[in-house]
Amino acid sequence: MDFKQVALSCGNGGKESLELIERVFKPYLQEFLVADGEDGGVFSGSGDFAMSTDSFVVDPLFFAGGDIGKLSVCGSANDVTMMGARPEYLSMGFMLEEGLQIATLERILESVRTQLRLGKLKLLSLDTKVLPKNSMDKIFINTTALGRVVCPALSAKNLKEGQSLILSAPIGSHGALLFSLRHEIGLHSALQSDCQQLFGLLEPVLLSGYSLYALRDATRGGLAALLHEWARASLVEIEIEERKIPILEEVRGVCEILGLEPYVLANEGVCVLCVDTPHAPPICDLLQANGGAPAIIGRVLGKTQKPCVYLKNAWGSRRYLEMPEGELLPRIC
Amino acid sequence: MDFKQVALSCGNGGKESLELIERVFKPYLQEFLVADGEDGGVFSGSGDFAMSTDSFVVDPLFFAGGDIGKLSVCGSANDVTMMGARPEYLSMGFMLEEGLQIATLERILESVRTQLRLGKLKLLSLDTKVLPKNSMDKIFINTTALGRVVCPALSAKNLKEGQSLILSAPIGSHGALLFSLRHEIGLHSALQSDCQQLFGLLEPVLLSGYSLYALRDATRGGLAALLHEWARASLVEIEIEERKIPILEEVRGVCEILGLEPYVLANEGVCVLCVDTPHAPPICDLLQANGGAPAIIGRVLGKTQKPCVYLKNAWGSRRYLEMPEGELLPRIC
Repeated sequence: MDFKQVALSCGNGGKESLELIERVFKPYLQEFLVADGEDGGVFSGSGDFAMSTDSFVVDPLFFAGGDIGKLSVCGSANDVTMMGARPEYLSMGFMLEEGLQIATLERILESVRTQLRLGKLKLLSLDTKVLPKNSMDKIFINTTALGRVVCPALSAKNLKEGQSLILSAPIGSHGALLFSLRHEIGLHSALQSDCQQLFGLLEPVLLSGYSLYALRDATRGGLAALLHEWARASLVEIEIEERKIPILEEVRGVCEILGLEPYVLANEGVCVLCVDTPHAPPICDLLQANGGAPAIIGRVLGKTQKPCVYLKNAWGSRRYLEMPEGELLPRIC
Repeated sequence: MDFKQVALSCGNGGKESLELIERVFKPYLQEFLVADGEDGGVFSGSGDFAMSTDSFVVDPLFFAGGDIGKLSVCGSANDVTMMGARPEYLSMGFMLEEGLQIATLERILESVRTQLRLGKLKLLSLDTKVLPKNSMDKIFINTTALGRVVCPALSAKNLKEGQSLILSAPIGSHGALLFSLRHEIGLHSALQSDCQQLFGLLEPVLLSGYSLYALRDATRGGLAALLHEWARASLVEIEIEERKIPILEEVRGVCEILGLEPYVLANEGVCVLCVDTPHAPPICDLLQANGGAPAIIGRVLGKTQKPCVYLKNAWGSRRYLEMPEGELLPRIC
C-alpha cells in the first residue's frame, strides 16, 4: 500500500487497518501500549480513581506552542488532574479523514509521544476510524484519561466565603492565538498557546496538605465560564480584581483588535485554585518555585441564591463578569 | 435559544453549552452521571480493571435493531467484556454538527439511556463539542468503557493446539444490514442488526470456572479478521468448518447479491470463545440457557511460523480464509 495518505481501506478492520497501526502508529506509540493486540488494556490498583473524556477537533491542527496531538494528551490529563488525581493512563480514539497525509499524522503522533513521555502516561486502548473524504475534517482525537486521586474531595461545590482564588498563569494565550490565526491577524508572532500538562506544576500543592477546595482549568469559555460554574455550583458570589489578573501584552493586542474580553478566551494550561486565604501565599510560593506564574486574583464572597461573578477595576468600582454567550470561536480545542 | 437544532454557540463552553447539557442531555443521562458539574468522575475499587475506547461514526444513524447511540454503548461495553470484565463505567464524548436536529439527538440519547439502564452502567464523564456545518457529518460518539476483571488473563496470545472455538450467534447481520441500507437493496425487511451488549450473555461462562482462554467480538472485519488476529497473536493455525457456522438466510441473500463473504461482515453483538475442548459442550449449554445461539465452529491446530485460518467445506476439502482486504464498507460502526 502507498503510505503517503490514509486510504479508506485503512478503516476495514483487516489487512490495511493492521498496516496503519503497525507502520504508522506503533513506531510512535508502541512503548506506551499496555495491551498489544487485545480489545482493551488491564491495569491494577486500589483506591479512588478519576476519569475524564474530551474530544479534540482544533482548527488549525498545528499552532505555535502545540498541535492537536499535544492538546489531546494535555486536555484529558489536565481534566483528571483537576479532580486531584495523578494522570496515569490514557485511551485514544483517532478519527481520520480519507486522504489525510501520513506525514501530518506522524507529526501529530510525534507530539503525542513527547507528551506521553513527559507525563509518564501509558496507553490502555487505541482505536482508529477512517471516514470517507468530506465526511469530516482531517483528524479528530478523543482521549480519556484515568488516574489515582492523590488529593480527594475537590469540587466546584466547595466554595465558601473568605476563600481565595489563585490563577496559575496569565490567561488567554491559547484562545488569542487561535483567534489571530483564524482571523489572519499578523499579531501572533510572539504569541504561543499555553497548552501544557498541569500535573507537574500542581503536584507539590496537591501533596502539600494545604487546604485546597476546588481546582479547574480555564478551557473553553475561559476564566469567566470557570468562575460562573463555580459560583453556580456553590451558590456564592465571587469577586476578582482586574488589575491582579495577568494578561500578556500580545493577548491584550488581539483582544483590542477583535473586540474580545480576555476573560472568555480559552486556555489549555492555566488553572484556578480555590484555597484557604491564609494558605494562599505559601501555595503561590510552591507554584512559583515549580515554574508557575501565580497570582491571587480574588475571593469568594457570601452565599447567595443569585450566584454571580464581580470584576473590580483599579478604581474600586465593580461590574458583573458575564458568562460567555453566543458564537465564540468554534474548534478552539 | 431555539432548541430545534444544535447551534454553533452550543459549543462555546458558556451559557449555550450549559443549556444544551441541561435541557437536552440531562433529561436522558442525569440518572447515570457520577459527577455533576465537575471535570470528570471519581470511582473507588481495587483489583484489575479493563478499559477500552471506541469511536462511532456509523451511517445511517438509525437502522433496524439499533442506532449510533445503542452502538456506542454496546461497542465499548463489549470490548471491556472481551477482557473478561464486567462493564461498570462509561465516558461519552459527543461531536455534533451545527444544525443537527435536537429531535435526532434526543432519539439517540433515549437509546443510550435504554442501554445504560440495561447494562447498569454509570457515566463518569460527558463531553460535547459542536463543529461548524460541513466540517463533520451529523454526530460522532466516542465511548470509553471501564470495568472490573472477573475472569482474568484472557488473551489473543493464549491459543493452543486442541482448543475449541465457539461462536455465540449467527454472523453478519449488522454488516449485511448496513450494506443493504447503503446499497439500497430491498432485502433488508427481515434483517436486524445484532447490536447488543454481551456481558449478560457471557457472565455465567466468565464466572463458571470452565477454561476460557480468549474471547473477542467479531466487529469490523468480521469473523475472518478476528480469527486472523488470534492466529497471528498466538502463532497457530486455526480450522473452522463452513457448515457449522450459523448464517441467517437474509444475510446469505445480501452476500449473494453483493458478492461478499459473510465471514468479513461486521457484527456488533457476536463473539468467539476459545475454550478447552472438553468444556465446549457445557459452555454452549450455558450460553444457550442464557439466550444465545452458540455453535462449536472449529479448533486450534498446531503452532506455526505462518499463522493462517482454514475453512473446511462440507465435503472435507479446505481453503484459506483470507484476512479482509481492500475497501470494505466504511462507517459500519
